[in-house]
Amino acid sequence: MQRLSVKSNQREEFLDVTASARHAVKEMGSGSGLLTLYVPHTTAAITVNEGADPDVAADIIAALAKIAPRDGRWRHSEGNSDAHLKASIIGPSVTVIVQDGEIVLGTWQKIFFCEFDGPRTRALIAAFLRP
Amino acid sequence: MQRLSVKSNQREEFLDVTASARHAVKEMGSGSGLLTLYVPHTTAAITVNEGADPDVAADIIAALAKIAPRDGRWRHSEGNSDAHLKASIIGPSVTVIVQDGEIVLGTWQKIFFCEFDGPRTRALIAAFLRP
Amino acid sequence: MQRLSVKSNQREEFLDVTASARHAVKEMGSGSGLLTLYVPHTTAAITVNEGADPDVAADIIAALAKIAPRDGRWRHSEGNSDAHLKASIIGPSVTVIVQDGEIVLGTWQKIFFCEFDGPRTRALIAAFLRP
Repeated sequence: MQRLSVKSNQREEFLDVTASARHAVKEMGSGSGLLTLYVPHTTAAITVNEGADPDVAADIIAALAKIAPRDGRWRHSEGNSDAHLKASIIGPSVTVIVQDGEIVLGTWQKIFFCEFDGPRTRALIAAFLRP
Repeated sequence: MQRLSVKSNQREEFLDVTASARHAVKEMGSGSGLLTLYVPHTTAAITVNEGADPDVAADIIAALAKIAPRDGRWRHSEGNSDAHLKASIIGPSVTVIVQDGEIVLGTWQKIFFCEFDGPRTRALIAAFLRP
Repeated sequence: MQRLSVKSNQREEFLDVTASARHAVKEMGSGSGLLTLYVPHTTAAITVNEGADPDVAADIIAALAKIAPRDGRWRHSEGNSDAHLKASIIGPSVTVIVQDGEIVLGTWQKIFFCEFDGPRTRALIAAFLRP
């Protein structure tokens, strides 16, 4: 298990953590298996999506803001209910496949830590399970 | 593998299954690895989110009802299309990390079984994989 | 690890890949463990939902189109921002439990490859991890 640190600079931001995840796999040893990346926060999430054009992440953030408007009518009084909802829509963890020490990703795929209530320093936990 | 039973009391409800999941891990043995919690239903899901304030779950349920209104125009005629959609938005399984027999969760995180078409008695399947 | 091929025939379509996933498990050997099905694309996803009535999938596709309209105001100029958003809402991978060589599914559950920007020939990667 490895605990990575992620620093966000805006309230809502997708941070490319592909290189950090690859580095974590290398540190945990070689071989093939499953890598679970887990977000121990309730107002952040993790996903895989296109990394070539930053407008893709910007579009996703803008569309989620329509589903979950920050100034909507929420019961929870901390002003971040939108972020809690987005966290569960995107999800707290992603499991990817590792083959011979390399994370298997599609041509355009990058792994994104999804900040929905930053800026903050966040943790991301990686566990690499091999047979 | 362990088959847990979850009893919902309302049509839509988030049930905190953190203690049940911890208990299942203990029954399946000690050590470190990945725990997959799997929902074998098509109108329920599982997520991780804030457990301190029940308003967070209430807000998520209310916001999902706007995305998927129960009385929307659906083709599927059983009156639960909203629940099927919510199940796929939140997801049928969650994989969490277990370290020395303990599920690794953030300070505010609880694991929630998401009932979208209750009340019912539901199953939740836990599998704990270690190296 | 097995690389499966999935052929979609429409722009948006849920393809039942349950039989392919079962076949992949058999080819990777017997036993119990976790099966991760991973989509190496950024405009497709994977989920588990009802397979008996095709209207359920049609309803989910129609509802996602309201959340993410194809002709919405998007920054990304390739005309498929809706598909990128849907991919992250549904998710790039699903982990299911395998018991004695059989994928554990609920009575009504089928595994669906979710095409959001077809028709295309797509890949689906399966990894079966046993203790």
